[in-house]
Amino acid sequence: MRLKGKPVSHSATLTLQSSLSQLPDQNRLRIFSGSANEPLAQEVATYLGLQLGPMVRKRFADGELYVQIQESIRGCDVYLVQPCCHPVNDNLMELLIMIDACRRASARQITAVIPYYSYARADRKTAGRESITAKLVANLVTQAGASRVLAMDLHSAQIQGYFDIPLDHVYGSPVLIQYIASKELSNLVVVSPDVGGVARARAFAKKLNDAPLAIIDKRRHSHNEAEVLNLIGDVKGKTAVMVDDLIDTAGTMLEGSRLLREEGADQVYACATHAVLSGPARERLFSGDFEEVIVSNTIPVPGHEDIEPLTILSVANLIGEAISRIHEESSVSSMFR
Amino acid sequence: MRLKGKPVSHSATLTLQSSLSQLPDQNRLRIFSGSANEPLAQEVATYLGLQLGPMVRKRFADGELYVQIQESIRGCDVYLVQPCCHPVNDNLMELLIMIDACRRASARQITAVIPYYSYARADRKTAGRESITAKLVANLVTQAGASRVLAMDLHSAQIQGYFDIPLDHVYGSPVLIQYIASKELSNLVVVSPDVGGVARARAFAKKLNDAPLAIIDKRRHSHNEAEVLNLIGDVKGKTAVMVDDLIDTAGTMLEGSRLLREEGADQVYACATHAVLSGPARERLFSGDFEEVIVSNTIPVPGHEDIEPLTILSVANLIGEAISRIHEESSVSSMFR
Amino acid sequence: MRLKGKPVSHSATLTLQSSLSQLPDQNRLRIFSGSANEPLAQEVATYLGLQLGPMVRKRFADGELYVQIQESIRGCDVYLVQPCCHPVNDNLMELLIMIDACRRASARQITAVIPYYSYARADRKTAGRESITAKLVANLVTQAGASRVLAMDLHSAQIQGYFDIPLDHVYGSPVLIQYIASKELSNLVVVSPDVGGVARARAFAKKLNDAPLAIIDKRRHSHNEAEVLNLIGDVKGKTAVMVDDLIDTAGTMLEGSRLLREEGADQVYACATHAVLSGPARERLFSGDFEEVIVSNTIPVPGHEDIEPLTILSVANLIGEAISRIHEESSVSSMFR
Amino acid sequence: MRLKGKPVSHSATLTLQSSLSQLPDQNRLRIFSGSANEPLAQEVATYLGLQLGPMVRKRFADGELYVQIQESIRGCDVYLVQPCCHPVNDNLMELLIMIDACRRASARQITAVIPYYSYARADRKTAGRESITAKLVANLVTQAGASRVLAMDLHSAQIQGYFDIPLDHVYGSPVLIQYIASKELSNLVVVSPDVGGVARARAFAKKLNDAPLAIIDKRRHSHNEAEVLNLIGDVKGKTAVMVDDLIDTAGTMLEGSRLLREEGADQVYACATHAVLSGPARERLFSGDFEEVIVSNTIPVPGHEDIEPLTILSVANLIGEAISRIHEESSVSSMFR
Amino acid sequence: MRLKGKPVSHSATLTLQSSLSQLPDQNRLRIFSGSANEPLAQEVATYLGLQLGPMVRKRFADGELYVQIQESIRGCDVYLVQPCCHPVNDNLMELLIMIDACRRASARQITAVIPYYSYARADRKTAGRESITAKLVANLVTQAGASRVLAMDLHSAQIQGYFDIPLDHVYGSPVLIQYIASKELSNLVVVSPDVGGVARARAFAKKLNDAPLAIIDKRRHSHNEAEVLNLIGDVKGKTAVMVDDLIDTAGTMLEGSRLLREEGADQVYACATHAVLSGPARERLFSGDFEEVIVSNTIPVPGHEDIEPLTILSVANLIGEAISRIHEESSVSSMFR
Amino acid sequence: MRLKGKPVSHSATLTLQSSLSQLPDQNRLRIFSGSANEPLAQEVATYLGLQLGPMVRKRFADGELYVQIQESIRGCDVYLVQPCCHPVNDNLMELLIMIDACRRASARQITAVIPYYSYARADRKTAGRESITAKLVANLVTQAGASRVLAMDLHSAQIQGYFDIPLDHVYGSPVLIQYIASKELSNLVVVSPDVGGVARARAFAKKLNDAPLAIIDKRRHSHNEAEVLNLIGDVKGKTAVMVDDLIDTAGTMLEGSRLLREEGADQVYACATHAVLSGPARERLFSGDFEEVIVSNTIPVPGHEDIEPLTILSVANLIGEAISRIHEESSVSSMFR
Repeated sequence: MRLKGKPVSHSATLTLQSSLSQLPDQNRLRIFSGSANEPLAQEVATYLGLQLGPMVRKRFADGELYVQIQESIRGCDVYLVQPCCHPVNDNLMELLIMIDACRRASARQITAVIPYYSYARADRKTAGRESITAKLVANLVTQAGASRVLAMDLHSAQIQGYFDIPLDHVYGSPVLIQYIASKELSNLVVVSPDVGGVARARAFAKKLNDAPLAIIDKRRHSHNEAEVLNLIGDVKGKTAVMVDDLIDTAGTMLEGSRLLREEGADQVYACATHAVLSGPARERLFSGDFEEVIVSNTIPVPGHEDIEPLTILSVANLIGEAISRIHEESSVSSMFR
Repeated sequence: MRLKGKPVSHSATLTLQSSLSQLPDQNRLRIFSGSANEPLAQEVATYLGLQLGPMVRKRFADGELYVQIQESIRGCDVYLVQPCCHPVNDNLMELLIMIDACRRASARQITAVIPYYSYARADRKTAGRESITAKLVANLVTQAGASRVLAMDLHSAQIQGYFDIPLDHVYGSPVLIQYIASKELSNLVVVSPDVGGVARARAFAKKLNDAPLAIIDKRRHSHNEAEVLNLIGDVKGKTAVMVDDLIDTAGTMLEGSRLLREEGADQVYACATHAVLSGPARERLFSGDFEEVIVSNTIPVPGHEDIEPLTILSVANLIGEAISRIHEESSVSSMFR
Repeated sequence: MRLKGKPVSHSATLTLQSSLSQLPDQNRLRIFSGSANEPLAQEVATYLGLQLGPMVRKRFADGELYVQIQESIRGCDVYLVQPCCHPVNDNLMELLIMIDACRRASARQITAVIPYYSYARADRKTAGRESITAKLVANLVTQAGASRVLAMDLHSAQIQGYFDIPLDHVYGSPVLIQYIASKELSNLVVVSPDVGGVARARAFAKKLNDAPLAIIDKRRHSHNEAEVLNLIGDVKGKTAVMVDDLIDTAGTMLEGSRLLREEGADQVYACATHAVLSGPARERLFSGDFEEVIVSNTIPVPGHEDIEPLTILSVANLIGEAISRIHEESSVSSMFR
Repeated sequence: MRLKGKPVSHSATLTLQSSLSQLPDQNRLRIFSGSANEPLAQEVATYLGLQLGPMVRKRFADGELYVQIQESIRGCDVYLVQPCCHPVNDNLMELLIMIDACRRASARQITAVIPYYSYARADRKTAGRESITAKLVANLVTQAGASRVLAMDLHSAQIQGYFDIPLDHVYGSPVLIQYIASKELSNLVVVSPDVGGVARARAFAKKLNDAPLAIIDKRRHSHNEAEVLNLIGDVKGKTAVMVDDLIDTAGTMLEGSRLLREEGADQVYACATHAVLSGPARERLFSGDFEEVIVSNTIPVPGHEDIEPLTILSVANLIGEAISRIHEESSVSSMFR
Repeated sequence: MRLKGKPVSHSATLTLQSSLSQLPDQNRLRIFSGSANEPLAQEVATYLGLQLGPMVRKRFADGELYVQIQESIRGCDVYLVQPCCHPVNDNLMELLIMIDACRRASARQITAVIPYYSYARADRKTAGRESITAKLVANLVTQAGASRVLAMDLHSAQIQGYFDIPLDHVYGSPVLIQYIASKELSNLVVVSPDVGGVARARAFAKKLNDAPLAIIDKRRHSHNEAEVLNLIGDVKGKTAVMVDDLIDTAGTMLEGSRLLREEGADQVYACATHAVLSGPARERLFSGDFEEVIVSNTIPVPGHEDIEPLTILSVANLIGEAISRIHEESSVSSMFR
Repeated sequence: MRLKGKPVSHSATLTLQSSLSQLPDQNRLRIFSGSANEPLAQEVATYLGLQLGPMVRKRFADGELYVQIQESIRGCDVYLVQPCCHPVNDNLMELLIMIDACRRASARQITAVIPYYSYARADRKTAGRESITAKLVANLVTQAGASRVLAMDLHSAQIQGYFDIPLDHVYGSPVLIQYIASKELSNLVVVSPDVGGVARARAFAKKLNDAPLAIIDKRRHSHNEAEVLNLIGDVKGKTAVMVDDLIDTAGTMLEGSRLLREEGADQVYACATHAVLSGPARERLFSGDFEEVIVSNTIPVPGHEDIEPLTILSVANLIGEAISRIHEESSVSSMFR
């Protein structure tokens, strides 16, 4: 049975704590949601047996944002859930304002829960006089007063080092992998849609019963010529699963899918944690080039019920479990052994 | 002759330098414009006898911004012109990205030229658990790497102290005052539209031939009652000039105008540096309640040609002159003696 | 019955906690007094059911200050009560030294309790090449190692933003207003003695049964002429209450009082939180121009018993209650709803 | 003619400045060498037409290091050349001490020239409770007082973002690629020896006449089984050039070479910028598995004359040119267009 | 009975806590050892009734260090025991890496326990363009993320001020003094082996029954002449105890001993907390010039069993007691009254 | 001829620059004086061929200080001369305010010239829960925005390390030594009046023709007994010169002088850089126990003309020369070779 249009929690692989009533100091744990993805925050709160904290969020006519927390958080451990997805800068600024408000309100600890970290692809200079915006964002979050960050599937693992405050990095891949494994697809090959994601794809392949790996190498020979895609590795007669951290305009996935079919793949799945889905992404998903497109709910997908090949899996329990462990001061990394 | 629809430079009161070719080290002076108000930046550059520096600005499909400066700025003094007007958060973030790019490109000094400082009204806590966002913005600009700020008509003068880097504060009022004076209105009274702006209005009045002052005091007697406006001072038979730092939704100005007319004012002018003009502002300006609405061009007003009572005066020369003095290391404050 | 010469606690409007023995973690709460106002600190401690902590304070022959805390404060929440009143720089430096000593002694949290914040009027540049000393003081307190500030009736609310550490701002006005209300004066008008304090006066007026407001506008027409005071608003036949945050040399209050009487006021009261009373202030209070001068005890007034028109109200309970709420991590802002 | 045992400068592809006597402010430019690689520093100085600055470096009997600069550097732009190669911690600490000495001696700008950046592989957490030592190193260099960093071929490009001070990243690959191109090898395939380096290998391949790419994927199926190497892509009958950023113990290269020969490669070259060559590396290079091992001189290789297959190319001119451009404030990135 | 070759705990003068089971929050207290002196760390842990925490420490073939803590320390108070003795830079870097790992692992508090603080003699500039490396080390430890330092017998007391984080300074002298007192030597004179250590020697003398003091003054008259030692004070017929904070190459002690015997001392003891013992130190100890050389075990002395005149006293209980007091938040300074 | 009551410049030992007109960039060099010692600042300016910069300094009636610099200093190198002598806290605060004003006025570099550094004796904790105020002062000066410090004869050399900004430490001793040498006293012995100053005394002795050294050791045997002074070394029939960094209450010097005479000294001179002279110091100088008391003019001594044994030597040229060298970027340390 294929599951579509509705978030599905897949967290059976996690050892969940049986009873959250044992959380020490539970009345000091507060969880608030920004505007970016309130349903996800709500699911996380539910996992923790909590209500979302009361907070006024306003956008004035001139576009300035306003936040007021509606109950005392003095001495509390506050978790602010805000994936910095579209509208990117509004959501980021709202997060910073929330952090500033919590700091000035004497919260004991402020954890920025950022399931989707924006500007993550701007993590190095590829030409002179660019910003390394992923680092800038880290600096802003730290400067605003966050004591800790909880992030999921960062575009590059090195972004962890952009922070000197503790950062807990959790992986959505167990949810994705478990779902794919449950489909019992035969003759799998995992494909990295570009050369930058090979390590991620390999880690994925290893957990899918040590599936083989293929790589798509896109090159432009000169400024006047079109790009050419080469496949490195073999997909003939196989079920190809393209894996990436995010699907933005879906262009890379679409081109990849077509190449894979040309090279003889029987079926093509696309799989990524973050469903950015900007610009022409939606129509590309409808192109018929994908058997299924599997993503998580770190980013809300308005109208996702109508996007036929899209399957959205919930990572709320994963995030909730991580928060629970941070709060009760046990190991987060052991969730992923 | 009434001037409408076109920016007008009024800077004759300023002692402008006769020849900018004497600027020392001129090839180290670079001026770049963000997306917020390129015409203003262009005017400023023209005053300085410079071209705007070449810079790629992009907005990706997912809303992330990108900036690349197209020429070496190593060792240069860079001025980044970006009023943080609508869309506020995009413009602020673009400014931060520009600063980060310049810092990493080894600029010698980076001056954030912020003719309109957003979130300036969020300059203190009026209730528990709010952000002081005006300070947050100062922290972000400093953290991103600005070496100096050039701001105009800050909502409260204390915002100067939100920075520990040097901040040059210039006043748009000379341009506004000179224009009003040139109208030779008789029997003037300067009106502060609320109790928070009395000091600003008084300074204005003093320069308008020591005109008398009146104040509008708006109070809500209880939660169930409507607000009541009281006029403190006398406007009967006079030409009232309401002065504020900004016109946002124009609600305060509109109510004020009506009260002033009820109290016997012959004519009502509204005057402010920053034309935020959000929400219902445009239709309120058309209401016929104002003889004229006088603002500066710190914020672009799309379609301003069609807003009949609106007069826009240019502060580009003022800003340009300030930049020139900063660059040649002479006094900025002496511009306003 | 009029109360003079002795501090009087007026805190009946506050919901005080019935039993302080319920303070969690009470043995970690320590309160120390600097040299500035030990009687106030003593009153605050008494409210909290505590003794002032033992501390050696010395001034060496050469003027250097020395502080040693006489009991272990490792892991404690320490409150250092020190209004930075006359001698301003000695009291400020003593506060910084106390903070440094507490930090090096491993206090868990250090709250600088600054009922009177000195240099608050230097909160912006009014001319080129000035210091913004109010910000400098904030930087020094933060740098010395304070974790939090508790301040009262700051000269401008924006000073809150000079700190990035949490600052709890409490208001002395409830004590002053309650006292004035208890006098049942008829036909009240609240007067702001200058244009900078109109917002403060209006807030005061609103709580005094929505009394009307008047403003004194002092101007110097040219360098050679004397200053002229204008009254905006109407005081004829009324009981005028001039409200300010502080009374320094009392010159503004004295001039104001005389103008009000000229304009027909029946009675003139002066009211302010901070009794700086420097230079000729005392003799001006004796001038017979005031029915009564009402202040709080944030600053000690030596020989106040002999200053006939002076009434001093105690804010110790207010401060004590704020400390209690900070320590037990409940809301401070709800004290002022 | 094959060049061995002697560093060779290959910088013809660079547009070198014809006359260094034009360097503005040349007497403010000082270059000092730490203990790590004085010959490289000497070459760089020679390129710049300078002498290495006089500096006492001592190691006391107890292992503490000492540095004293022997001429005034007040107001100078100081370049400290120190690859942090073996002994890693001594060289890093010596660099920090040099920086501290220069800062206290009032140097105007201190550039840490780090041709080999140690701990670069520790650039993320791969398990709980690890250090991100590459970030720690960045923090230490910044904290010690460096104003800028000049680095070469960082293990991951994201390390650029570990610094907020300007970092100029130069590439050794032009030197390596030019040398390989000069050999006119036919039927080339570029091989990434592991999945982490595919992007680097692809960039290399693109510049080698758009050579095809192959990838070695090393996996351990379970804890008890040995690792298995898989080749993705085709090398049969080809000349394989394995590319990495560094050769440490040479284990990966050796295994790779053997796999490539098994898979039918005719010849196998190994190529990397940084010749770490620790542990069994030397004997592995002698194993006969490599036609040639091509490295740069960022790290000194004692006794390199006797390592038959080793070719060392000099990057001194590249570094010297970058320093020259930094000093004369022109573009460094344009060196690599 | 003389005690040699085996560490001996002398802590009877300390008021030790009878039952460590009363430590509050004991399960949050963790103690880890770096590579420098694991036996000392083990003794300290034993005193505290704890095991050393599990930690992987590796040195890769290229000399880079690696650390992974093997259990969750989230929310724990972590004590890292690492005297920065030989190899100085490796031990210092290992300490920094351990701190960084603990910070990123969300430890609540990280105390760097540094029984021997390296580079302490580089605590000021004695010539132009030197580093003040003792300060640099403090900056690095703070920057890496330590929350507190526990140090013993710093070379100069002013190094305490190099930190702004709390530093607890404990003294090894009680252990040394008690041991010497127990020998009941008659006719004691305490000797400072150079003019820099007179204050330390005097404090020692005072506790040894107010013994008299003598000072060795070493001068070089000109660059060509040899150094000359002068004795200030009288040692004829006395038992001389030379006291210093450390014995490095033992040159000063050896020369001092010979001078003292020339000046008529009957016996000469050498006494210091830190047994650096580098270079020719061991053979100098064997020279027969010392009756006994008394040191502590802050630094491990490999093969100390064979160094005949050497007596090593353990300071583990002292350090353990200090940790216990820090953890239970009582006074450390009262240990030394 | 004995010189009294008037400052005397002794700087012939210094290689002074012959012509200050060669100062590069001289119009960027500005020197301002705080209130502490304007005559010294004036002498320094004269040495530099400059006028003191125009600055308004005010003390309001309530004790708050105000500073406004009266000319543009944008881009200038500003030197602020302010020994932090009595009134210590006022002078320190004035210095901080001056620094803050200069920073906000865009000075390029701000050098705090602190000939007498207050709180220098509070440079370590001698008991629990003290401040290390000397470090606090360094933190405050740095935080306020100083770019560099020029200090003279710091109480302990380690205070240099309290700053991470460059600090140039100059010595007043050449002036003192030259004066004493010029007296051609025979049979000199240099005496340290306490055990803490032995190193300073020895350096002094070495330059006085390698004079012998003696030390006064003051001890209190128990709480009930009086202090006892012991002389270590021999002064019989000699001319004793007691050397210290400062003379505060002159108690130590007086006791020392009496002991030296008891022990047979023929003559006793007292010599120190800083004439703090607080409390009973003046009458003690008149006690007849000193042949002469030699100090410098770092601190003004009001009425010094009437203090018979007092000789004041000027260090203005020394400070002026140091400023000149800092400004022209040559070596300061070479002044003292």
